[in-house]
Order: sequence, then structure tokens, then C-alpha cells
Amino acid sequence: MSITSPGLRDPLAIADAVRSRQPLVHCITSTVSMAIVADGLLAAGARPMMTETASEAPVVTTIADALLVNLGTLSTDAAAGIEPTVEACAASDGVWVLDPTAIGIAPVRTPLARRLLQRRPLVVRGNASEVMALAGQSTGGRGADSRATPTEAQLAAAEVVAQTGGAVAVSGARDLVVDAARSTWVDGGTPLLTRVTGTGCLLGALTAACCTMAEPFDAAVAASTWMARAGELAAKRTGRPGSFRTALIDALDEVLR
Amino acid sequence: MSITSPGLRDPLAIADAVRSRQPLVHCITSTVSMAIVADGLLAAGARPMMTETASEAPVVTTIADALLVNLGTLSTDAAAGIEPTVEACAASDGVWVLDPTAIGIAPVRTPLARRLLQRRPLVVRGNASEVMALAGQSTGGRGADSRATPTEAQLAAAEVVAQTGGAVAVSGARDLVVDAARSTWVDGGTPLLTRVTGTGCLLGALTAACCTMAEPFDAAVAASTWMARAGELAAKRTGRPGSFRTALIDALDEVLR
Amino acid sequence: MSITSPGLRDPLAIADAVRSRQPLVHCITSTVSMAIVADGLLAAGARPMMTETASEAPVVTTIADALLVNLGTLSTDAAAGIEPTVEACAASDGVWVLDPTAIGIAPVRTPLARRLLQRRPLVVRGNASEVMALAGQSTGGRGADSRATPTEAQLAAAEVVAQTGGAVAVSGARDLVVDAARSTWVDGGTPLLTRVTGTGCLLGALTAACCTMAEPFDAAVAASTWMARAGELAAKRTGRPGSFRTALIDALDEVLR
Repeated sequence: MSITSPGLRDPLAIADAVRSRQPLVHCITSTVSMAIVADGLLAAGARPMMTETASEAPVVTTIADALLVNLGTLSTDAAAGIEPTVEACAASDGVWVLDPTAIGIAPVRTPLARRLLQRRPLVVRGNASEVMALAGQSTGGRGADSRATPTEAQLAAAEVVAQTGGAVAVSGARDLVVDAARSTWVDGGTPLLTRVTGTGCLLGALTAACCTMAEPFDAAVAASTWMARAGELAAKRTGRPGSFRTALIDALDEVLR
Repeated sequence: MSITSPGLRDPLAIADAVRSRQPLVHCITSTVSMAIVADGLLAAGARPMMTETASEAPVVTTIADALLVNLGTLSTDAAAGIEPTVEACAASDGVWVLDPTAIGIAPVRTPLARRLLQRRPLVVRGNASEVMALAGQSTGGRGADSRATPTEAQLAAAEVVAQTGGAVAVSGARDLVVDAARSTWVDGGTPLLTRVTGTGCLLGALTAACCTMAEPFDAAVAASTWMARAGELAAKRTGRPGSFRTALIDALDEVLR
Repeated sequence: MSITSPGLRDPLAIADAVRSRQPLVHCITSTVSMAIVADGLLAAGARPMMTETASEAPVVTTIADALLVNLGTLSTDAAAGIEPTVEACAASDGVWVLDPTAIGIAPVRTPLARRLLQRRPLVVRGNASEVMALAGQSTGGRGADSRATPTEAQLAAAEVVAQTGGAVAVSGARDLVVDAARSTWVDGGTPLLTRVTGTGCLLGALTAACCTMAEPFDAAVAASTWMARAGELAAKRTGRPGSFRTALIDALDEVLR
């Protein structure tokens, strides 16, 4: 695993590269969102691969082009498999993205997420509550939602960047992407993205796919842009969540071309 | 966790309350149905949260507004996590619903379901075979379907009510809702609801959401009504099961307003 | 569990029989694909049942009409449950299908798949890489895709047939079905089938359903034909993967009537 096309900056060029190179993305993610993550990656031109046990995941990750670790539903299998998998990925300077889903509320995943941070994920993607919890800040949020202010999110993201040296993407009404040198907002998208399960997990997976084609900051911006544009297109076609899910997958195949 | 709006009776008022209060519903449910349960709750205005391990579920359930325990695929994680989670919920007089999926056919889940019954779920939701198995009656059913008569279902439901003091909802061509004082049928719906995986699980989750806004009997009637009306609307739009699934999620967002 | 209608040859007659007899198909399959497998079986007229633990799967499989074992994401539960379940099925001369997903790349599942082969599945369904790995041949493929030639696939399939005495179905742009006496290609389908997660898993489950109504070779041809015709119909309605998934489920309900 390695970054094959560093230097791409433009979201359109990065999406093109994903579609032509079809990176194999190993995803350890929430049981709830596995299907939308896999279908979304396929729609974007990447190839998903999912396995999370300690007996298989560390081996198969070495043939993947990128790894997504989403703490998701954190089964016992995943809790045992994640660290050796990240270690195997990191040992070969692999591309990996951390999505610290729902940390801050559960006793197991918060220390796990902090240990994973020491393995320096190229990108951390989460909502503001999760990024703040990862940065060691208390949050007023509960569950997977977020009530942090933009300033709080920026400070927390900078704190996490200081630990990883990579990029941090904070999802929200606008997505914030930060690395050691830069900070930008990705505008657009649609509130309908919050009404379908797993769109955040899918954004993490798409970020991992883009990381195989660009530097972390640019990859995170490209993935957020891709998802925002797809969400906007899907929202033009329907205002209801069931048909929006279908339209979103269609739109990932359609936009940024 | 507590019932925040006791006294609501009308299904429309209960649905309105779910949409405005957005209860956080912790679901331990079948792996097969997790996505439709989560997407259906989101469409109905509630917020899903899924985790089932003994190391996390008992902790996170205390910040939820309601808990659904569906025996579903009953992973080893769920088998270990369910009882301490229900205990944590019950210890704070929490709102919880039991869906004894497929009991009567497997050696592990039937005694588990009977033990859970002693924890007095506010609502038990199942098909007639499952409710009969829970009541200790033998059934002619197999798998998740049901061949019991309405009278058999009523007797079994009354037997379960006698043990829990709550309500029992028996799903079928018509849904039966029973508590210690009352009994009613919810008519309507569509056979297409039986052609999509997880609609029963989703009804259980919706019942848990409604239980945060009303007494168990009224909550069960509201959830069954919500699902029946959504099914009818979706069936007007399509007669095929793939597009019905999508239309059903759309309709949960649309009906009972 | 037993073959109830041996002798049906025509895919149309086999599909009719599945729809009228509604076989109960026990599926141990990938977590990613559980929902599409269950919804696809329901659309085809069969009844899905999913559970994979060693404590339940060997018991419940004895009331099913057929068993699908797909190595899928191979959780620890599945890794422990598969062998006793297959043993229970085989002990009653049950109908079962093996889908050796992703073998050849992981240290656990390849020896497991070889042991399962000794239990003589009626049909083995996989892509060319997987069937070659099962036959003990090295492959150039990685992940779940396949780059083998038709001749390589035929040789590997014949090798597997020699071990099981059943049929082997090799999925690809054209599907190859082989048994000890015959070999045929099922043409048609659409590349869109490769852009949705779990369509291969669903084909395995559909094959298991068809095996309850016909001899293995004819059942495998019927299932491949059913899926190919459904894919073609769905592809007439949409060219995008999200709406194709929905249209495919609809089409399974619609074609081969």
C-alpha cells in the first residue's frame, strides 16, 4: 500500500484517478453501514473489501490500497482486529483513515481511538463532537450528533493534526478540512445526508479511496466535495430519505466527472 | 431514560411528538435488518444508535431515550450484551421493547426471551408464533412466519401481558395490541410489508420510539398505525418489493403528519 | 431437508416451483450482503433465515429446506458455526451450497473452504479466482475479483466437481455451469451486476433455493438464468448502481414467470 499519485490537487482530477485506478479499500466499519459503504465505494469506482477479525484483517489489509477504520458498532471481532490491522498497514507505510464514530460516550472505544491516533492516520474524519473527544475536550453532544461551534471544531482539529501530522476532516453543515499548513471549508451538501444511515461512514471510506491518489488534505477535500455534490444532485431528485439513499449512490457515480 | 410525554393517545399526536423530540433509540437488532431499522427510525424523526457488546451496550443505553432488544441473528456479542443492557435500562426505569424474533425454534434464544420477560418490557412485539412461544404455548409455525389463529394470538398476548404488566403487539395481516385493560386491532397495511426484510424489526424500533411519548398500549397502536399507513402509501406507488422498500422509508417520513 | 422436486429442468419451471413452494433458505453469509440476500430471496419467492452461531445455526438448519454457506466476512461466530452447521445439514442429506468468497487471500478461510469441500456441497458457486483457489490452483486475482481465462475456469471447475460429485457455477461476464456429465454457459446479464455489493452472494442463495426443486446442475443454471434475466431487465430501467440495486430486486420478482 502506498500513495500512488501524490500531487493531484483538484477534486475532479482525484475522482478521475479513483475511477481509473479502482483502488481496493479495506473497510472495518459499522455493521449498520457496511452495505452503503460498499455500494458507495463501488459507485465511486473503488473496490470495497470488508473483514475485521484478528485472524484475517491484518493479512488482507496488506493487499489493499487503503484502509478505513471506523469504530462503528465495534464488535468484539473488530475490537480485537483493529489494532493488529492498523499495525500491519502502518508497517508498510500504508494509507489509512480513522473515523472515531461515537467516541466520548463509551468506555471501550475512547481509549482505543486515542491509541489509534498514535499510529498517525493520514486523515481523521468525524463530526465535531467526535473530533473534540479525540482531542481530549469534553463535548456537550450525545450519540453521534454534534453541537459544537465552528471555532471549537477548528481548535480540536488543530489539536488532532498536531498529534498525527496528517489532515482532519470535520463533518457538519459545512465540512472543515485542516492540516498543519492549511484550513478550508467545503460548502454545499444537503441536510438529507443526515437522514440516511452511514453517509458519514461512506465519506470516511471515500476519503480513504482518495488518499490513494493525493495528499491527505487534498484527498479529504476531494472526498467531501464528491459527497457534497452527489448529495446536492440527489436532493434535486427527491426530498424523502428512502429515495434519497438510492439517488445518492447514483449521484456518486455521476458527479465529479 | 423515562417516558417524557405520558398521556398522548392519538397516533398523529404521538408521531408529531417523535418528530419534534427526536428520541435517541438504542437498538440491539438483527444484523440483516440493522440498516432498514436505522433508516426507518431516521425517516420517522427518531435517532438510532446501535451497539450490542457487553462492554459498551449497557453504558450507552443509559443515555438513550429508549431501548429495543430484538433477538434477531443473536450473535455471541448480543447474547452476552443483551441481559446487562436490559438490566442497566431497567435500573433507571428506562423504556424498553422486546422483539422475540424466531423464538421457539432455537435452543439459546427461547430461555433468554423468557428471562427477559421477567424484566418487564413495556411492549413485546412479535408475530403470533413468537408471542405464543413466549407464552409457553407450542406453535405450528417455523422460521419467522406465523400460522396461529387470531384467538390463539389473543390468548397468548394476554398471557404475556399478565407477566409484564405492559402491552403486547402481535403483528399479522391485522395487528393486535393488548394490555391488561384493553385490546384493539390495527387494520390496513399491505402484504408487501412481508416481502421486505426487517419491516417487523423496524416496527419494534418504531414502537420503542413511540414509547418515549405515550403509554405502552397507545405507543404500540401508534407505531402499528404509522407502519400500516406508510405501507399503504408505498403500495400505491409500487407493487414490487425492491422499490417498495424505498417507498416505505419515504412514506414513514410522509404519513401521520 | 431434501430435494423435493427432482426432475425439473427448465429454469422457468424451477422458478415457478420456488415461488409456489417458498423454500426456507438458511443463509450464513457476508455481513455486508445479508440484506440484499434476504430481500432477493424474498423477491424470488423463497424465505430467508439467517443465524450463524455454533449454538443456534446447527439446530435451525435442520428445519430449513436448504443451506447457503458463504464465507463472506467470516466473523468469529461464523468461523465456529459453519462446520457444525454443514455437518448437521449433511447428516440429514440436506441441500447445501458453498460460496467460497475471497478464498486464496486469507489464512483462515482457504483451509476451511477445502474442509467444507469434503462435505460435498451440491453446488459450489464462485468467481473464477475463487474456484481456482478451491481447486488448489494459484491465481493472479486479488480481492473478490477475477482475472482467470475461461479455460482456466473450466479446468478448475472440473477439478472441484471431481471432489464433490455436484455442480460448480463460475460467475463472470458469462456464467459457466459444470457437473460430471455436462457443461454450459449462461449468457446475458449486465456489468451493472458487478457494481452492486452482494449480487454474487445473492446468486449463491438463489442457487440454494433452486436446489430444493431440481438437480444441482439444473438448479445452478436456473439461478444464473434468473439473475441474468433480472439484471437485464433492471439495466433497461437504469444505468446507475443505486437505482439498479432496487430495480434488480423488483426484477427478481418479475422475470421467469
